[in-house]
Amino acid sequence: MPLFDLPLEQLRDYRPERDEPADFDDFWSRTLAEAREFPLDATFTPYDAPYTNVEVYDVSFAGWGGHRINGWLLTPSGAEGPLPCVMHYIGYGGGRGFPHDHLIWPAAGHAVFVMETRGHGGAQTQSPGVTGDPHGSASSQAPGMMTRGILDPDDYYYRRVFTDAVRAVEAAAAHPAVDAGRVIASGASQGGGIAQATAVLHPGVRAALIDVPFLTHFRRAVEITDRDPYQELVRFLATRRDTTDQVFTTLSYFDGVNFAARGQVPALYSVALMDFVCPPSTVFAAHNHWQGPKEITIWPWNGHEGGSGYQREEQLRFLHKLLGDG
Amino acid sequence: MPLFDLPLEQLRDYRPERDEPADFDDFWSRTLAEAREFPLDATFTPYDAPYTNVEVYDVSFAGWGGHRINGWLLTPSGAEGPLPCVMHYIGYGGGRGFPHDHLIWPAAGHAVFVMETRGHGGAQTQSPGVTGDPHGSASSQAPGMMTRGILDPDDYYYRRVFTDAVRAVEAAAAHPAVDAGRVIASGASQGGGIAQATAVLHPGVRAALIDVPFLTHFRRAVEITDRDPYQELVRFLATRRDTTDQVFTTLSYFDGVNFAARGQVPALYSVALMDFVCPPSTVFAAHNHWQGPKEITIWPWNGHEGGSGYQREEQLRFLHKLLGDG
Amino acid sequence: MPLFDLPLEQLRDYRPERDEPADFDDFWSRTLAEAREFPLDATFTPYDAPYTNVEVYDVSFAGWGGHRINGWLLTPSGAEGPLPCVMHYIGYGGGRGFPHDHLIWPAAGHAVFVMETRGHGGAQTQSPGVTGDPHGSASSQAPGMMTRGILDPDDYYYRRVFTDAVRAVEAAAAHPAVDAGRVIASGASQGGGIAQATAVLHPGVRAALIDVPFLTHFRRAVEITDRDPYQELVRFLATRRDTTDQVFTTLSYFDGVNFAARGQVPALYSVALMDFVCPPSTVFAAHNHWQGPKEITIWPWNGHEGGSGYQREEQLRFLHKLLGDG
Amino acid sequence: MPLFDLPLEQLRDYRPERDEPADFDDFWSRTLAEAREFPLDATFTPYDAPYTNVEVYDVSFAGWGGHRINGWLLTPSGAEGPLPCVMHYIGYGGGRGFPHDHLIWPAAGHAVFVMETRGHGGAQTQSPGVTGDPHGSASSQAPGMMTRGILDPDDYYYRRVFTDAVRAVEAAAAHPAVDAGRVIASGASQGGGIAQATAVLHPGVRAALIDVPFLTHFRRAVEITDRDPYQELVRFLATRRDTTDQVFTTLSYFDGVNFAARGQVPALYSVALMDFVCPPSTVFAAHNHWQGPKEITIWPWNGHEGGSGYQREEQLRFLHKLLGDG
Amino acid sequence: MPLFDLPLEQLRDYRPERDEPADFDDFWSRTLAEAREFPLDATFTPYDAPYTNVEVYDVSFAGWGGHRINGWLLTPSGAEGPLPCVMHYIGYGGGRGFPHDHLIWPAAGHAVFVMETRGHGGAQTQSPGVTGDPHGSASSQAPGMMTRGILDPDDYYYRRVFTDAVRAVEAAAAHPAVDAGRVIASGASQGGGIAQATAVLHPGVRAALIDVPFLTHFRRAVEITDRDPYQELVRFLATRRDTTDQVFTTLSYFDGVNFAARGQVPALYSVALMDFVCPPSTVFAAHNHWQGPKEITIWPWNGHEGGSGYQREEQLRFLHKLLGDG
Amino acid sequence: MPLFDLPLEQLRDYRPERDEPADFDDFWSRTLAEAREFPLDATFTPYDAPYTNVEVYDVSFAGWGGHRINGWLLTPSGAEGPLPCVMHYIGYGGGRGFPHDHLIWPAAGHAVFVMETRGHGGAQTQSPGVTGDPHGSASSQAPGMMTRGILDPDDYYYRRVFTDAVRAVEAAAAHPAVDAGRVIASGASQGGGIAQATAVLHPGVRAALIDVPFLTHFRRAVEITDRDPYQELVRFLATRRDTTDQVFTTLSYFDGVNFAARGQVPALYSVALMDFVCPPSTVFAAHNHWQGPKEITIWPWNGHEGGSGYQREEQLRFLHKLLGDG
Repeated sequence: MPLFDLPLEQLRDYRPERDEPADFDDFWSRTLAEAREFPLDATFTPYDAPYTNVEVYDVSFAGWGGHRINGWLLTPSGAEGPLPCVMHYIGYGGGRGFPHDHLIWPAAGHAVFVMETRGHGGAQTQSPGVTGDPHGSASSQAPGMMTRGILDPDDYYYRRVFTDAVRAVEAAAAHPAVDAGRVIASGASQGGGIAQATAVLHPGVRAALIDVPFLTHFRRAVEITDRDPYQELVRFLATRRDTTDQVFTTLSYFDGVNFAARGQVPALYSVALMDFVCPPSTVFAAHNHWQGPKEITIWPWNGHEGGSGYQREEQLRFLHKLLGDG
Repeated sequence: MPLFDLPLEQLRDYRPERDEPADFDDFWSRTLAEAREFPLDATFTPYDAPYTNVEVYDVSFAGWGGHRINGWLLTPSGAEGPLPCVMHYIGYGGGRGFPHDHLIWPAAGHAVFVMETRGHGGAQTQSPGVTGDPHGSASSQAPGMMTRGILDPDDYYYRRVFTDAVRAVEAAAAHPAVDAGRVIASGASQGGGIAQATAVLHPGVRAALIDVPFLTHFRRAVEITDRDPYQELVRFLATRRDTTDQVFTTLSYFDGVNFAARGQVPALYSVALMDFVCPPSTVFAAHNHWQGPKEITIWPWNGHEGGSGYQREEQLRFLHKLLGDG
Repeated sequence: MPLFDLPLEQLRDYRPERDEPADFDDFWSRTLAEAREFPLDATFTPYDAPYTNVEVYDVSFAGWGGHRINGWLLTPSGAEGPLPCVMHYIGYGGGRGFPHDHLIWPAAGHAVFVMETRGHGGAQTQSPGVTGDPHGSASSQAPGMMTRGILDPDDYYYRRVFTDAVRAVEAAAAHPAVDAGRVIASGASQGGGIAQATAVLHPGVRAALIDVPFLTHFRRAVEITDRDPYQELVRFLATRRDTTDQVFTTLSYFDGVNFAARGQVPALYSVALMDFVCPPSTVFAAHNHWQGPKEITIWPWNGHEGGSGYQREEQLRFLHKLLGDG
Repeated sequence: MPLFDLPLEQLRDYRPERDEPADFDDFWSRTLAEAREFPLDATFTPYDAPYTNVEVYDVSFAGWGGHRINGWLLTPSGAEGPLPCVMHYIGYGGGRGFPHDHLIWPAAGHAVFVMETRGHGGAQTQSPGVTGDPHGSASSQAPGMMTRGILDPDDYYYRRVFTDAVRAVEAAAAHPAVDAGRVIASGASQGGGIAQATAVLHPGVRAALIDVPFLTHFRRAVEITDRDPYQELVRFLATRRDTTDQVFTTLSYFDGVNFAARGQVPALYSVALMDFVCPPSTVFAAHNHWQGPKEITIWPWNGHEGGSGYQREEQLRFLHKLLGDG
Repeated sequence: MPLFDLPLEQLRDYRPERDEPADFDDFWSRTLAEAREFPLDATFTPYDAPYTNVEVYDVSFAGWGGHRINGWLLTPSGAEGPLPCVMHYIGYGGGRGFPHDHLIWPAAGHAVFVMETRGHGGAQTQSPGVTGDPHGSASSQAPGMMTRGILDPDDYYYRRVFTDAVRAVEAAAAHPAVDAGRVIASGASQGGGIAQATAVLHPGVRAALIDVPFLTHFRRAVEITDRDPYQELVRFLATRRDTTDQVFTTLSYFDGVNFAARGQVPALYSVALMDFVCPPSTVFAAHNHWQGPKEITIWPWNGHEGGSGYQREEQLRFLHKLLGDG
Repeated sequence: MPLFDLPLEQLRDYRPERDEPADFDDFWSRTLAEAREFPLDATFTPYDAPYTNVEVYDVSFAGWGGHRINGWLLTPSGAEGPLPCVMHYIGYGGGRGFPHDHLIWPAAGHAVFVMETRGHGGAQTQSPGVTGDPHGSASSQAPGMMTRGILDPDDYYYRRVFTDAVRAVEAAAAHPAVDAGRVIASGASQGGGIAQATAVLHPGVRAALIDVPFLTHFRRAVEITDRDPYQELVRFLATRRDTTDQVFTTLSYFDGVNFAARGQVPALYSVALMDFVCPPSTVFAAHNHWQGPKEITIWPWNGHEGGSGYQREEQLRFLHKLLGDG
């Protein structure tokens, strides 16, 4: 891959105007309040596998609309006292996969709570998922999740997902092994976008680990990349041509730059300069708007895989320093 | 494209065993009965465009679950008496498009009723559609519609679609310009699969025009083609590996060969021998099981585009002969 | 597709220098005069299909060199008095297809005259055509039509095609159902390029509908797009490297910007901002040079499909307003 | 590439029924007689390049219809007496290229006469050509040469090409450096097909070198390969669906298996078992029908590049043995 | 992906003739004896990362030729007594990655020893590796490792790799946390091929976990798949055409079916029926020749990803049962 | 291909800063001195093929490390006195091919010495090669040659290749038919990069013919092209992320711009403006730094094939003029 976005020196200062609806905060307050009318009802079922140094729970809780959302909770065996807990949100298309996909956090002494993204998980052969999206949408859509319900913020798919993510924090905090004061939001790509929003929407989140975030600076993204999933939006706009204004209005309630502008907790971002899926300018746009303490790791030669395992180790060190202990 | 399926002489006799659930008919009786509990409430709003020899209506009616389904009704201007009406079901991904996409039938003196396939219509730039699928699904899915709700026949996407299609026949028949005794089910690919089912599920359908039908002989299709949309099923099976039996059980309620084995009215099929999307053996499997009078047009050098305009003219002639007049 | 050409604000003012041969007008006067030495000999054979509200004729007339050119003429049944007639020129590779592909115009009360592009029509499975190009060329060529005879304006393929198009206007006008004073030139892509030229070359054309025109601003096109058919030129230049000057000299007689600079009648253009086949700057170059009254519809999210059905309805409204009635 | 055609043991015996028109020989006698009514008028212009051990001539002669056909003649400098001459016919799309592309034959003491294939040579950047095909065709076509004039044997493109090839033998024989009794027809792919035909059509050809021949066993080729140029035929058949019988009738006059069945002179064939362009069964079909002495070199791991340089050395040895000396 | 190899019922019995050199066992005895002349010199350096429930060592030992080979050793923290140890060999192209990529085994109470494949690890962005292959090769090669030194078994790349793998078993056994009597060879694709060989070459290996093994049944593989890395062999054979016999002679010393025929310990295979990279018949060929107790897990809908996480859990259960405890 | 690099007017002046290690000259002096400690031992074995006007020798000599390097020497038969000799270095992936691939130079009265690039020649079906690279590398690598030993200039693959190239000049000069004072370095792509370096490293080289040179201006190349082989570097950097500085340090000893800045002899460059493999700015960077007399041929419409046969004739004329006679 070649470089294709702004030069790095411009990226470092790229802080575009934001397009934010007046009722952004009200929208989310109302949304979360409605969701909390359903009892959380988090259940933690021990998972049957021959593990000896980690406890694994098959988790379920009530997300948006009271729908059951699935996940995993892993804790290191024999830990004393409540633990920091990493909320792990998943990239586009994947399910929660297997417990053994998430062992890095308990290996470092943390709990990890993996939340499924409703509806995803049926087509990535190595990341199966089981959670459905029992809510349909009132308008036609492009295949995928990006345009499901996009003509109305109340109907938009990610309203349900971001709400699930906030409720997941609450479900994690409900488990005795978790220290509710040390919950970390994390994820890459779609998971990064969700983590970014959750770190704003739930006041109890202590920090955010945001890798190559998707769902961020939509307007620029659809103009400079031809890759999915942003292209789902372009295909919809190219088809339902009369809906452009409504589409961007809806997206403004979900745009990562608007969440970033409200970010207060420490955040560790990462970005890849040859990332055609989540172009670097869209990532820097959010990072540069983030209000709290922040760092960004730059991967100059990588595409959307971003920092991968290297970044995982960065995050272990970041948390180690932040939390004083592992 | 090369030839890749069975030789033509074997295709002509290919009539595989069918895998049919014992309660197939009950399932559909129950489904349609439930749908009919919602008032049909068909509305026909004149469409504003400067046409002079065709009447165009923007149609809406209550489909499965009472959800609003959209479509077009076109009738030739100045026709006397109720007309034969061609039900036109749409291929995978497309919406109803524009009224001018459907002028062939009124040009031949017929009405045409175009039904949108719920949820589709957001990504084919030349066939926009507006109808949503307000019902979600209880399980994860592969992108697209093929695996939406696939773990339970009651939850499966095509249960809603086939029901919409039957209700559409009733909506058409409710219009004074339409002769309810001369309704024809038609479509290509997904539309062919829907037409095939509708001609069985609604006793008032007079004949069926079934081009390169999709949703037919699933088991063979997923083993010999690597093309979408059948591959959506393979991706799901490759991911949710524990669900194979349930997936095929669900599909058996929707398999075109099971509908074909109940077909009584005259049917004009078409098949293309180089069709990698809906392989010829899956089409012959249905045709060879069809019980009523039947013909099949074979396009030896074509892929999934099938007979296209040539077949359209075949159909005009077929209807002209069947109906005595246009 | 991403945006890739000039920003919209620059496109609106993009009016490049033109490269025009001194004998441009003489060349075309001479060419048309020579063609008119052959009797037009337009024939209109009723087409056998069960249509009831449209009359269909299989048309043939003498084009350049007296070669027989084929087409369709469709008129709404029972129309009173001569009608406006839309000349429909076809995109690259297609033939005239079927009469039912062209019903929109008679549905709106117009006649439509569909002209085949000589030699095309043998490889687009849904748009078959029958007209040959009985004239060969004196030089080697790249596959396709773009470089057939390109080393000499007199030998160039599009000299024959543009002449056919002018003669087609005369053939249309020769039919009693057509009002020669209300002939409209129309087409998309190659068809748009032909319509643009014809609206200049034949003084009787009343207006032009020019969608994403091809054959326009060649020099820029070959430098910024890697898509066919413009790439046929690049392949030729990359092979016959000694011919660059002659190639561009030849093309200057056929370049849409040179025709646009002579355009006097009302023109409705359309352009797509993500069109990699006919890049937006090449379309604006022509539009901005057009001398007559003009409008341009901009499709910001579309590729070369352009406005498709949406644009068709724009055109109906444009003509309705222009002609007073349908 | 994998193996995809018949197993080798079956290929060795594959000798399919031929489909031959009754007037095959008359057709060609008449065709050649007509061509010979034009004076051959072969011209040999010394080519200006600083070569010291080879003489190079830019050649032109009257081919079919008297059209000028271009080529090269190279002879080793200082040769005594008339030399054997290798006729080199060119693969699909290429022109004659440069004299230095053909030095192998004079290096071995032979003359070489390179004939351009009319119309080709405008899109292979490394094999430019200059010869046009001044004869057009009466029917529409798919891009490329395979379907130019395909609805009538008299109008078919390869009628002109094969005739040019026979006339080229006569042009070569007309040069004093060439021994008319030791002319060899050679070529690969299209060039192999032309060589195969020429070795039959011109009685003076002494032997044939036929590599991975194209234009041979059309019926099987279009059913088992999806590669161009055979696919040009499929695209045409898929579009002009009413022409299948006429297409195959025309092709029967040009099919390499029909020429092979008349082959009398020694022939050295080559075939590649992973050749998806000219599948091995089509090559063996011709080889197995060839009547004269024959050998075939089998390249088990190669695609359409076939034996390339290895085969060139095989041919040098074959000729060395056949001709006694170089 | 479609099914493309033999039907499952034939695969179950597919047990092809083997092509085995007479000195197969001598070759390997000599090779290993030579390698053991270099001191093993295994070093285990604690790895600096904030893990709390796993011990991580950066490992180095002397492989073939005494070259330093790198890897990881992970053991669960606080384990009592020597542990079973899973040898993990890596797929084509990958390096050892990060310690956190291999946590599944310590989570289940086992040690894991990850061996790098020399020379690999420089191009899979998520699996970096550091080990070089300090030995070059005496002949030209295709890019990749498959043909490095292929003209001589002594010079062949995999001679060095298989030897490294045997020495790795000895390095693992040298660590006090490892129970030398409970070492398990494992891997997928290339790693599966290495595990298969190692379980034969080192008598101390207790069992083998062999997923979609590569390097197995070369002759069939190169004839039915067009995917890398087997295609590296085809490209070489297509280029160095005179070497076919020597290539297959060399490969016979490394062919998995020849190792399988010597397999004595319990083996758990897995195979995917839509695997175009390591076709199912090549896997069954080895499994069906394996002499010891054996099972095979069949993934009917998967490609080369095979069983992935599902298979990992199968393996945990298999080991749990085999070893009595985790 | 479109234009994608700087506009031509900027290219003409593009003369970027160079990144040159302080010991560049020492590094190469030391390297060559070490190599010369091995006896050159050039052997010239007559090649058995029926050529009559050219002498062909199968050549072998001791390159870097004393490893045997293979090649061809061709001289025109019967030449009097020692001849100018064109050193021909080969493009990435190719071997020496066949003697008949190199006949152009003896045809023009020159000798030609073709040197194989060690290790290449196993995967280009039409350019087989036999020379191995018996030296391995100490670090992991991406497939291909670009990153073999890249973490240390002493270990880097091209150190061996450039040294071979200098020794090849000496081997050529050792043959009695060659005039050591008239040796010309030439090549395209990788061969161009080698020729560029050799013309600097060996003082006896009289001139250089450098076509679309590779291995030149690495830093810019990896940022603007996504094509191999430069992408091998990007894949390595994206994987071994900690090595960026060392990689570029190593490359600085091999960068064509650093050689160009030392170029004293006449050089004929060529560049193609649509060359995505060796982008034009990287070629102009070297050309504009070249110190000696220089020309550059610009191919505006070509990709990496560059000038091909046209450029070959340019070179014949250039040498003819330079050398006074052929």
